[in-house]
Amino acid sequence: MKFLDSGLAAVPGYSYSAIECNIKYSGRLDYALIVADSPCNASGMFTTNKITAAPVILCQERIDTPIKAILINATNANACTGTEGKQNAELLTRDIADKLKTSQESILMASTGIIGYQLPAEKMLKSHSSLIEKLAPANASLVPRAIMTTDTKPKELAVSFSTSRGDFSIGGTVKGSGMIAPNMATLLGFLVTNAPIAKHELDIIFKRAVNNTLNAITIDGDTSTNDTAIVLSPISDNYLVNKQDLDNFAEALLALLMKLAEMLVADGEGATKMVKIIIKNAASKDDAQLIVKSVAESLLVKTAFFGNDPNWGRIACAAGYSGAHVQEETLSISIAGIPLLVNGSPVDFDSKALFEIMKNAEYSVVVDIGQGTSEAIMLTSDISYDYVKINAEYST
Amino acid sequence: MKFLDSGLAAVPGYSYSAIECNIKYSGRLDYALIVADSPCNASGMFTTNKITAAPVILCQERIDTPIKAILINATNANACTGTEGKQNAELLTRDIADKLKTSQESILMASTGIIGYQLPAEKMLKSHSSLIEKLAPANASLVPRAIMTTDTKPKELAVSFSTSRGDFSIGGTVKGSGMIAPNMATLLGFLVTNAPIAKHELDIIFKRAVNNTLNAITIDGDTSTNDTAIVLSPISDNYLVNKQDLDNFAEALLALLMKLAEMLVADGEGATKMVKIIIKNAASKDDAQLIVKSVAESLLVKTAFFGNDPNWGRIACAAGYSGAHVQEETLSISIAGIPLLVNGSPVDFDSKALFEIMKNAEYSVVVDIGQGTSEAIMLTSDISYDYVKINAEYST
Repeated sequence: MKFLDSGLAAVPGYSYSAIECNIKYSGRLDYALIVADSPCNASGMFTTNKITAAPVILCQERIDTPIKAILINATNANACTGTEGKQNAELLTRDIADKLKTSQESILMASTGIIGYQLPAEKMLKSHSSLIEKLAPANASLVPRAIMTTDTKPKELAVSFSTSRGDFSIGGTVKGSGMIAPNMATLLGFLVTNAPIAKHELDIIFKRAVNNTLNAITIDGDTSTNDTAIVLSPISDNYLVNKQDLDNFAEALLALLMKLAEMLVADGEGATKMVKIIIKNAASKDDAQLIVKSVAESLLVKTAFFGNDPNWGRIACAAGYSGAHVQEETLSISIAGIPLLVNGSPVDFDSKALFEIMKNAEYSVVVDIGQGTSEAIMLTSDISYDYVKINAEYST
Repeated sequence: MKFLDSGLAAVPGYSYSAIECNIKYSGRLDYALIVADSPCNASGMFTTNKITAAPVILCQERIDTPIKAILINATNANACTGTEGKQNAELLTRDIADKLKTSQESILMASTGIIGYQLPAEKMLKSHSSLIEKLAPANASLVPRAIMTTDTKPKELAVSFSTSRGDFSIGGTVKGSGMIAPNMATLLGFLVTNAPIAKHELDIIFKRAVNNTLNAITIDGDTSTNDTAIVLSPISDNYLVNKQDLDNFAEALLALLMKLAEMLVADGEGATKMVKIIIKNAASKDDAQLIVKSVAESLLVKTAFFGNDPNWGRIACAAGYSGAHVQEETLSISIAGIPLLVNGSPVDFDSKALFEIMKNAEYSVVVDIGQGTSEAIMLTSDISYDYVKINAEYST
């Protein structure tokens, strides 16, 4: 497995397009299309929010059928838009299907942007001819730009991996769990591969990879109405079935998603650094998850990261209110490898030196619970002035 | 029941003292004592954090015995301090008990400030003579100042209420759920009354009142290791037993605690306003609590309040990921009485006018879930630049 100095473009078998449709703003790419040369198996992971955007509902209905294309718009989430919102998502994907001469069910859709406003469906329909005209493998790099909201840069990456039948590649793009004026946006991720993977294998491998990457990052703890991650793999009469081959695919997909997840956190709204929270020796897997979420989402912990402050008391406190089994006597905490608390006893440390270390853009915090053997990891960002600025100053 | 233009001083039967002990900083009151003329029934509500500070453990052990005094220090939380921390809390309260000629078990203790450092017990012991010399009813107003951490002002208030046996009063002081350099502090509340209330009645009334007030506010969602609220009422052979009298006491205590809770939120770290989140018609009481907590603690919702942004989509989203039963079709949201979403359909509103209304220091948000009849209310603050500043800039 090796990372390629490329993105979606590294993977043969797909075409891309993106245009300025002026959905909410002018002068930016906001409408994109990914089309597979041949029908694909698709796997998807979607928001757990009970308020689910119309395109997410559409994807959930279609994800188990052969998929030909993914239609994506930014700047309008098509969430909290009722029946009209669902009809718009259907209308737009039906028109794309007609123009691509495929079935309506083979088109997925994803949206990100403001909540509570109807899509400008007519304007979008009128743009479909140019969206399709522009389709080309060489336009891959437009998609990461078209899906951005408050992301400061487009994010895409690719990996190649070996199998008994030669090398294959996976390319992916994500957009951040940041917000767009004036409402909430979304975590979106789109991956394509030329490796033919049977649907049930793809589902298992993709779910596991997303849970350990995109579902293991936090910026502000808010789960959007639109979160969507989709992978496409060509339908074939000759799938990769060799266990080692599938393991290589899974490893490559996991590595790709982890790098993309790291890019998301590093580009979190107002984030100045990325901190890996590692929980060790929790009483159970559930406990480890409760604790890692509690620490990674604590405002006090995240503002301490911003201030380069080795505030281990805030970390102990967040572990303590997580709801998991935590005992002072078995609790140990270290930051960037420097022990601060060992089995409930504070350790003398050079706070000035650690302050300097915490200025780094990346470091780890290890919280050893001492109650069992379960682990969990989450990537988090700090909370800075700019986070508040970005999210407060887009007043209507 | 009426509010008095006073505080702890309004209640006969108690003496107060506070001194500059230089526990962590010099030039500020940091060590306080509340002494009852006669032994009291005490009720207490304490942090649910599994990492519990030494003084909280001491209070939990003693709260059901007759109580004579409460010893309080600021600037050091005596949390994560192990056996030595517990010994220090015992040592200090034993010395106070000796000097007051009472039993060790009759002294409660509360601490707030930095986590993970031992109290300077010798220095504190040496100050006890002057702490006790200074005891006087007239020194009541020193206590609210001595317990402050990042609070910008002392908070105390009193109420009087009528009974079949004449008027009584309740006085109280609280300190904010803000933080102190460089670690987490605490919500502390101390209340005294001259109304004689039997222990079991006091427990029931106090618990209910705290759950609807101090436990129904949020500033940053972090639950400290030291949260403590205590009420003292004189032990008597002639308790108030008339139901109307007890109801009047309960009503007065609730009103007092609500005002104190409002003072806490209004003085939340960096807070510029206080917003009351009201959940209506949730499927169950648990659901109502899940939703109110999710909305009141959402960073996106709180930054929108700071920006005066009628971002109802963020509120819908936070309700959606709360884990409670929420359906778009029955969800309605209003801000300051102006409907923004009605049964899942966005309503046109004058966003400029609402922007102006949201500049007010206080307003309500009503989220009608339309799934049942349960309600919940929580007071929350906005998240401003100053919140980040206060919590990031105290680097060690």
